[in-house]
Amino acid sequence: MKISELSRRSGVTIPTIKYYLRDGLLPPGHATAANQAVYDEDHLRRLRLIRTLISVRHLSVSATKEILSAITHEGDLHQILGIVINARPAALTAEEEQSQQPAPPGAADALRLVAEMGWDVEEKTSAIGELGGVLAALADLGAGIDWRTLLPYAELVDKMSKLDLEQLNGLSGPLEQAERAVVVTVLLEPALLALRRLAQEDKSGRLFGTTACGQELARPEEGEPGHHGPGRSSD
Amino acid sequence: MKISELSRRSGVTIPTIKYYLRDGLLPPGHATAANQAVYDEDHLRRLRLIRTLISVRHLSVSATKEILSAITHEGDLHQILGIVINARPAALTAEEEQSQQPAPPGAADALRLVAEMGWDVEEKTSAIGELGGVLAALADLGAGIDWRTLLPYAELVDKMSKLDLEQLNGLSGPLEQAERAVVVTVLLEPALLALRRLAQEDKSGRLFGTTACGQELARPEEGEPGHHGPGRSSD
Repeated sequence: MKISELSRRSGVTIPTIKYYLRDGLLPPGHATAANQAVYDEDHLRRLRLIRTLISVRHLSVSATKEILSAITHEGDLHQILGIVINARPAALTAEEEQSQQPAPPGAADALRLVAEMGWDVEEKTSAIGELGGVLAALADLGAGIDWRTLLPYAELVDKMSKLDLEQLNGLSGPLEQAERAVVVTVLLEPALLALRRLAQEDKSGRLFGTTACGQELARPEEGEPGHHGPGRSSD
Repeated sequence: MKISELSRRSGVTIPTIKYYLRDGLLPPGHATAANQAVYDEDHLRRLRLIRTLISVRHLSVSATKEILSAITHEGDLHQILGIVINARPAALTAEEEQSQQPAPPGAADALRLVAEMGWDVEEKTSAIGELGGVLAALADLGAGIDWRTLLPYAELVDKMSKLDLEQLNGLSGPLEQAERAVVVTVLLEPALLALRRLAQEDKSGRLFGTTACGQELARPEEGEPGHHGPGRSSD
């Protein structure tokens, strides 16, 4: 297909496609004349993945490039998963580079939690720093929540990661597996946070919901149809 | 305490504290002279919460202000939780305001998932749009993952939201409950994503890990000590 069709089918503008071609995110098309090239279904598929990583997952162009290069060149799914798991949104990466903390606060507590779970991970993996940062902030706030409080959450997340890996079953080629791995590890993050907010809204309504006239209402645990919580001022 | 001590104990600079005071995020101190005021433990506590919401959770100043105002003025915990659950990082809020989508793509699938789970939530709640956006992106990618694939994840997240609400047990005052609610709903998000990445790294290593010489290694499911996965190129 021509670049115009590639643009139409992917929803990515022609100037952006040309930028991705120059930057090496997208491999060159098949040349048909001095200044003309055609593109195939693989280009379309890769372009959709690029658009998703950048616009839905907010990754930087360079992180996206690293992931795509790993999918194309690495045969080792664990290595690809490692790159994907460590990929951070562009805004956070820039912030981390600015701060350059040698030993993130709370990292020792994060490692305690990891040891308690029996997880076998690299000590320097970026998630240790992130978890440590939150644990340190919780300690600062005197919130009464420490790494032990997070253990039952870690148990649920452990089950979740097994579901994640199950998504890779039954796929034929390593390229297809790697693509799915990117989708599952990276793209499901905002979905899971959204699901948690929905579940919280439901539980909050059941526990603390009040009727329109401001009376406390004890709501049944499950299954009462058609009752909606009060409006929120942020709607 | 004087503003200098408030700054030292909170880790927030004096100019930033003055900005928060002018902007109403922080209530005025108790005046001792024409141009002097003292601050108490409540100011310190609130300042730590502000710093956390803005720097750890990346909320905008206005979203932070709305949450703090709700904690101070609303007695209704469900309403406070609603505001907190709907609060978005500053970058995302700006982007959403730019795009102004009337009906988010994938929202119908998100509502199907919510109905299947029996969750009682507002249709217009922001998480529906976020979940829908991911579902639409997954469909575009032809990733073979739809709302039904997410049902087992939703079951785990449902259990997680029950843990979230349990964190509010045993707290004395409504203000203390509301503060804890903010911490649990907002601050735990990055912690949960970090935990998921750690669990994924562990499971990925066990399933797909290779030895240093590149041989596939079938690793036991649980408990083998001291084995570390291969280094990742992004370390």
